[in-house]
Amino acid sequence: MMMQKLRRSGEFIRFGCKSLITSRPNKNSVSRSVSGFVNHYKSKGKLFEPSDGNYYNTELHHPCISRNLGMLLQKYKCFGSSAVSLIQRNPLFSSLDSKDVSYFKEILGEKNVIEDKERLETANTDWMHKYKGSSKLMLLPKNTQEVSQILEYCDSRRLAVVPQGGNTGLVGGSVPVFDEVIINVGLMNKVLAFDEVSGVLVCEAGCILENLATFLDTKGFIMPLDLGAKGSCHIGGNVSTNAGGLRLIRYGSLHGTVLGLEAVTANGNVLDMLGTLRKDNTGYDLKHLFIGSEGSLGIVTKVSILTQPKLSSVNLAFIACKDYLSCQKLLVEAKRNLGEILSAFEFLDNNSMDLVLNHLDGVRNPVSSSENFYILIETTGSDETNDREKLEAFLLKSLEKGLVSDGVIAQDINQASSFWRIREGITEALQKAGAVYKYDLSLPVEEIYNIVNDLRGRLGDLANVMGYGHLGDGNLHLNISAAEYNDKLLGLIEPYVYEWTSKHRGSISAEHGLGVMKANEIFYSKSPETVALMASIKKLLDPKGILNPYKVLPHSLFSH
Amino acid sequence: MMMQKLRRSGEFIRFGCKSLITSRPNKNSVSRSVSGFVNHYKSKGKLFEPSDGNYYNTELHHPCISRNLGMLLQKYKCFGSSAVSLIQRNPLFSSLDSKDVSYFKEILGEKNVIEDKERLETANTDWMHKYKGSSKLMLLPKNTQEVSQILEYCDSRRLAVVPQGGNTGLVGGSVPVFDEVIINVGLMNKVLAFDEVSGVLVCEAGCILENLATFLDTKGFIMPLDLGAKGSCHIGGNVSTNAGGLRLIRYGSLHGTVLGLEAVTANGNVLDMLGTLRKDNTGYDLKHLFIGSEGSLGIVTKVSILTQPKLSSVNLAFIACKDYLSCQKLLVEAKRNLGEILSAFEFLDNNSMDLVLNHLDGVRNPVSSSENFYILIETTGSDETNDREKLEAFLLKSLEKGLVSDGVIAQDINQASSFWRIREGITEALQKAGAVYKYDLSLPVEEIYNIVNDLRGRLGDLANVMGYGHLGDGNLHLNISAAEYNDKLLGLIEPYVYEWTSKHRGSISAEHGLGVMKANEIFYSKSPETVALMASIKKLLDPKGILNPYKVLPHSLFSH
Repeated sequence: MMMQKLRRSGEFIRFGCKSLITSRPNKNSVSRSVSGFVNHYKSKGKLFEPSDGNYYNTELHHPCISRNLGMLLQKYKCFGSSAVSLIQRNPLFSSLDSKDVSYFKEILGEKNVIEDKERLETANTDWMHKYKGSSKLMLLPKNTQEVSQILEYCDSRRLAVVPQGGNTGLVGGSVPVFDEVIINVGLMNKVLAFDEVSGVLVCEAGCILENLATFLDTKGFIMPLDLGAKGSCHIGGNVSTNAGGLRLIRYGSLHGTVLGLEAVTANGNVLDMLGTLRKDNTGYDLKHLFIGSEGSLGIVTKVSILTQPKLSSVNLAFIACKDYLSCQKLLVEAKRNLGEILSAFEFLDNNSMDLVLNHLDGVRNPVSSSENFYILIETTGSDETNDREKLEAFLLKSLEKGLVSDGVIAQDINQASSFWRIREGITEALQKAGAVYKYDLSLPVEEIYNIVNDLRGRLGDLANVMGYGHLGDGNLHLNISAAEYNDKLLGLIEPYVYEWTSKHRGSISAEHGLGVMKANEIFYSKSPETVALMASIKKLLDPKGILNPYKVLPHSLFSH
Repeated sequence: MMMQKLRRSGEFIRFGCKSLITSRPNKNSVSRSVSGFVNHYKSKGKLFEPSDGNYYNTELHHPCISRNLGMLLQKYKCFGSSAVSLIQRNPLFSSLDSKDVSYFKEILGEKNVIEDKERLETANTDWMHKYKGSSKLMLLPKNTQEVSQILEYCDSRRLAVVPQGGNTGLVGGSVPVFDEVIINVGLMNKVLAFDEVSGVLVCEAGCILENLATFLDTKGFIMPLDLGAKGSCHIGGNVSTNAGGLRLIRYGSLHGTVLGLEAVTANGNVLDMLGTLRKDNTGYDLKHLFIGSEGSLGIVTKVSILTQPKLSSVNLAFIACKDYLSCQKLLVEAKRNLGEILSAFEFLDNNSMDLVLNHLDGVRNPVSSSENFYILIETTGSDETNDREKLEAFLLKSLEKGLVSDGVIAQDINQASSFWRIREGITEALQKAGAVYKYDLSLPVEEIYNIVNDLRGRLGDLANVMGYGHLGDGNLHLNISAAEYNDKLLGLIEPYVYEWTSKHRGSISAEHGLGVMKANEIFYSKSPETVALMASIKKLLDPKGILNPYKVLPHSLFSH
């Protein structure tokens, strides 16, 4: 039925995607993840390293994975049950030659055309050292015009490019897969305007998030997003990946806070969508196409964003709950009673707490007795006394209602830091505990802990399953800790976790994007018709496919 | 230069838009508004009413306006200085025949295929009686499947359609221009799910906004938007027009609060984007294409939206300020000091106040002396005592700083109503005062009152210029009141107001959309490259152009 629809819709399948998947994949379907292939062969003792060093061949109709991508598997030690094919370098892409380099030097100047091996080694590799490309050139444009000239040239030559910002992504989106030319916007780092009345900041894409935060601090404002990577990540990258971060529960996603963009499409066309208005209903709001499309539709060069006044009063409570239902109810009550000052609602389970207590020094449970769940509630407001009274009254009421079994409010910054240390220390504790399988899922809040329980039942004594994350945003960090990686365990986890998430209309990537890591997994979270339309839009904006190829969308949709 | 770019970009001008405007129009450019044409000829005594009753011919290369559209001019009495051509019925569209009607009766049942003249008369006419189409058929689908079947058939037959909800729009977007088949989604009015933990509501597109508000009230929640038209407007229409409304300053635009959509594209393809998650970074976020595209890319059939807990404490202050700079500063201070409870920040000038006092019975100025500007500040929070104290402290501080010359806080609901009556009564007072030219503009906050002053200087004694609106959102209602409509006055106002707005990067439609009224004016607010991309996307999703034709985008871009 779906296939019939798609076939009829000439617009959406016009570029030869014969193998378009027509329903969300299940355990038996072909091609689950890029990791599966190598391990499939590994497990059969047939993993081959081709002599050309560029790609594996495969008899399957699915895309091919580069040898470089295979590297990630050694980290993840994933042993999937289904066969997966590999990404192949698109043979239609040109290879860089000396004339290209000369041209780039002409428009950018010698020093902003990087051929130095050491610098390229860094730019080719992601910060986790999981993904590595083999680009021979990095370009450092200083302004939009230069980005436009670069892209116009690359498009005419059909040279593939990878846009790069702070290179802090988690899914291999910001490094080349093969020899794509790296366009790093780090030199485009100027604040262009700030309006203290509206709080609207306009800046270039290469501004580092923390630098923007520092600039705004002098004006008494804050960015509407905050991330662990803020010291390195660029606002252009934040926008391109629709970064979530710590303030989403309060200020919403970048689709709401970004007011305007300037972006350059593959052919060098500069799209001026750099409005600074909160309300503008004149035509289609195209900037949203560039928010979260991971640089595959255009390179974001300027950003206009609504910042927030810095508020003076921050309070933090650490709370124990008997069961998950109480956590849910507490969230509802917190939204109602603290609504306007609520700025974080995080949770961890007892397994996570035990892990932290066992593996990190100097950490102690702030509440007296062990409980099944712990919640951190942060409030941010404009009035210290009132805000604190409000939080205290809320906790007292929750205790009386039996939603909360114990709880404490930080009395100073040191106590607050020690509370956050527990929540933020889980990742570190997991690393110390042994092998860990990590999943970053969005699910309806009422389902969040069901997957943890189901998986716990499924794995039994084989592993320690932990659930924690941004409960207020429906974002679960599902982590499975074991003494060591092993096939049997992974076989029980995947594709079970993806299928479970898909069945409950969840997202297999809450905030990290798909990049090259999960491009083929998109059908777990998006319908085939929607993915087909995404592919049509990609084709419309980037007909030759030069922008960040092999990423976001399944490569099978673009077999030329 | 721009034209060169566009010409090079085969993707964006591939459907014959030879006359693509290459820069924002100015006073001397061809074709400013649909109103201009008729008046151009009127002023020359050459206004003709063609015998075919369908359209005017024109020698210009711009689109043609239907005779029906001409009607609005008699209301507005606009006398523009530049020539405008007319919209012509697209001759490629089929005309409805009896086989079509039979088919629709087969799939929808007799009673949901409306041919009754009286009902069609209503459906053909907008609520202001400014726009009137001549459709011979209205269809009332009961579910998504039926919408899909209708569109698939219309697309194959090339029958143009107009999607209709509550038909409360202000720009002629929801009524036919010619004989388009009306698809009214009013029977699709079920709430499908509500999650009390996350506050996510999922419902069909035909749900009336007020009904949703009533439903949510029983659950202790509110919709993130509220409009004057809430008793009639549909949530599907709200989404399709990106309705703003009263709560935008607090909860943001629908691009932030709508979590998912289901939409049917022109060929009947159902796009399931009906996620209920706050975070989902798996591919392009396509729902944004359907938010604010006024039904020209698809018909929204289901909506998933983040609702907000109903808070118990509402306070309202009426404040007088000496000058506009003080209003601006007060806004900054209010965001900082009331930030988390601020729910409205409205302003009116002294001219608006005088008008209300002179024309409405029983209204009095709540502050003792007349002042240049008045501000309404509303707070909504969870704690009556604290919120009130916070507002009082804020006002006291603002008085001490000299930002505020006087101010009162409503002591009960009656006082609050009387304060709101002043702000909301301006429209009524304007109608009573005589002829009125109305503009709904978004501008940077610091520019908002400059246009009022400039226009006042420009018009002198010819008219009374008033400025009021949603200052907190940068949305100005610019109104020019005169004893009667006259050519000279309009010639001084237009295109001056549009050009002024364009020059200051404002929006000529803050929240009402473009519809048929301002489709040709889009270049005042959007760059040609951006509009060209919009047209490409329209072409991609609706290759035959059957969905809400003649609207949103300049018809010249679609000359087949």
